[in-house]
Amino acid sequence: MKLEIKQNVLLEHLNYVIRGISTKNLRPILNCIKFELTDEGLYLMSTDSEISIKTFIDKKDINKIDTTGEIVVSGRYIYEIIRKLPDETINLEEVIDSKLYITTNNSSFTLNCSNVNEFPDLELEFNQNPIILNQKLFKTIINQTSFATSTSETRPVLTGINFKIEGNTLECTATDSYRLAVKKITLESNAVENSNIIIPTKNLNELVKLMNEDEEELEMHIFANKVVFKFGQITMMTRLISGTYPDTSKLIPETYELTMKVKYDDLYSAIDRASLLTNESDKNTIKFETTNDTAIISSNIPEIGNVEEKITVEKDNDSEIKIAFNSKFMMDAVKSLESEEIELMFNGEIKPIILKNVESDDLIQLILPIRTY
Amino acid sequence: MKLEIKQNVLLEHLNYVIRGISTKNLRPILNCIKFELTDEGLYLMSTDSEISIKTFIDKKDINKIDTTGEIVVSGRYIYEIIRKLPDETINLEEVIDSKLYITTNNSSFTLNCSNVNEFPDLELEFNQNPIILNQKLFKTIINQTSFATSTSETRPVLTGINFKIEGNTLECTATDSYRLAVKKITLESNAVENSNIIIPTKNLNELVKLMNEDEEELEMHIFANKVVFKFGQITMMTRLISGTYPDTSKLIPETYELTMKVKYDDLYSAIDRASLLTNESDKNTIKFETTNDTAIISSNIPEIGNVEEKITVEKDNDSEIKIAFNSKFMMDAVKSLESEEIELMFNGEIKPIILKNVESDDLIQLILPIRTY
Repeated sequence: MKLEIKQNVLLEHLNYVIRGISTKNLRPILNCIKFELTDEGLYLMSTDSEISIKTFIDKKDINKIDTTGEIVVSGRYIYEIIRKLPDETINLEEVIDSKLYITTNNSSFTLNCSNVNEFPDLELEFNQNPIILNQKLFKTIINQTSFATSTSETRPVLTGINFKIEGNTLECTATDSYRLAVKKITLESNAVENSNIIIPTKNLNELVKLMNEDEEELEMHIFANKVVFKFGQITMMTRLISGTYPDTSKLIPETYELTMKVKYDDLYSAIDRASLLTNESDKNTIKFETTNDTAIISSNIPEIGNVEEKITVEKDNDSEIKIAFNSKFMMDAVKSLESEEIELMFNGEIKPIILKNVESDDLIQLILPIRTY
Repeated sequence: MKLEIKQNVLLEHLNYVIRGISTKNLRPILNCIKFELTDEGLYLMSTDSEISIKTFIDKKDINKIDTTGEIVVSGRYIYEIIRKLPDETINLEEVIDSKLYITTNNSSFTLNCSNVNEFPDLELEFNQNPIILNQKLFKTIINQTSFATSTSETRPVLTGINFKIEGNTLECTATDSYRLAVKKITLESNAVENSNIIIPTKNLNELVKLMNEDEEELEMHIFANKVVFKFGQITMMTRLISGTYPDTSKLIPETYELTMKVKYDDLYSAIDRASLLTNESDKNTIKFETTNDTAIISSNIPEIGNVEEKITVEKDNDSEIKIAFNSKFMMDAVKSLESEEIELMFNGEIKPIILKNVESDDLIQLILPIRTY
């Protein structure tokens, strides 16, 4: 393998694949990046066996392709070296004894290579009819649901986001069994096959970091035990979580005893301040209590002090609510709605609290109350 | 105590005193801030017994002083509460049962207060003839020397910066016994008394964070076991480290076998890249070797690879040098010089390396070489 390439071009693509290398030291080959130089361009690949990332630099973005070939080299070192080199042309050349020779005008690095044959197969297959999504919308889906995922390994299915595709509807669900986030999307065309899969949340968060801020399309290729995402020059595979995702559809009530509208800013900052006098051992409990068009949000830590915040609410009937909940869960839910005005729905003090944007039903947030009264 | 004050005014000053509260939980009173409201204005005070900070808000910056008085309240809580309140007028009032009542239009907090009498005396005395320094220059002194201080407690005197004042000269010295930084300053007027004190580096770093970017004066009041700094509305006390600081004056040679000039950018980035292939267990060793007007900077980790960087040097004679040193120490020293061109001085491969700015002798950096050849 021998080529000449601009530092900034190579660095941009190393920035993608570096996210796929293993940070554990169990199998040294998984800390490596594979370079595959063909007449069409340069492929960079990484895998930690949970996710695999592949990116492609077209020959038109490479100064000179001299000899095609493959090498496997330490990801962390090649990344740091290219990152610290000046924005000039870099020569990369495989030399005898499996070494990679990296040179610019004044710098020359020699890195030991690993055996190409030991590098695992990335399993980046595609199927004929992928689901097509807008990248920006996909990012929004993940940001609006992922925080509600469980981080505890006691129920592995809850550490992922459930993607349910039926016809032209995609429904994404995340829950840690104390709260629930459900986002519904209408696809541009019907899926050929219905799917019901669980994708690990941490891998989805990595995927989102790989995406640019543009409106480009994202292809989602679903298989029995993995899903392959393709966008721009990047392909990423993640394994799926096996198991059956709980049916959460019955948790969202069809009618409500009390619905109220409240301004986002008022609600968020009042809860933010009230949460200063809560503590984690007490589930960050705060109380919410209405009287006419005012809600009082209060909390206390007996040895420190207490707080009372007043906000204006617009109720749909004369009934009042007195309820307690986890302030952090409520702030996560409110933030995800990205709306100037928010709707809060209640069925008494022991039933779930539902939140949604006033203008749309796409996103539903649910929080279980805490019994204190 | 009862007053009305703008949120941003109070927050600015809480930002200063919050740095003085204890982060350990040994004596709860040291986690507190003391408020002292007089007819002249509001004093805020904190101390962790190592440092004490006092700041003053003049009555002209306070909307209304109602009842003077003193309270002591949890620093972390009052700081977070004021920080999260909107930029409006805040009412602070001491109410029965030693409680502080904090209110704005929609928020009301009640915080339990501690006993004012338990709050330690800050010992913020002044002497008649303080040393006068420019704040910006003081910041520079600390930034150019503090990194060379030891962080190990085995020799406590090396965890501070030595301030030696003789007549109109201030000499600041920091060393961890492997490297040395010496900065000399000419004072605007003679000190009334010569001093030779050791100030804890971590307290100096806190002091520097309290300073604004302006050219204001800093008063330094030196006592037997403490030093009190005064600038703007802020007074800060730090204890001194007792013991005798080692005499480092003889470590800096008077003559050199070889002196060379080198461009800052060339030297810094070459060492930065070479340091990628060093490791801490091996003291981050890199080699520096001249041939005519070229220096080769090299390093290697046998199992990973090696690097060679070339830079141009301008020597004062034909002799050559072959020497090894800690790349991190060299980068710290080079960075502190803030100069386009740097002078490196050598007396053979086992004697200290000296660095200075080409244009001035105010700051001398010394690094001990590592024997490898």
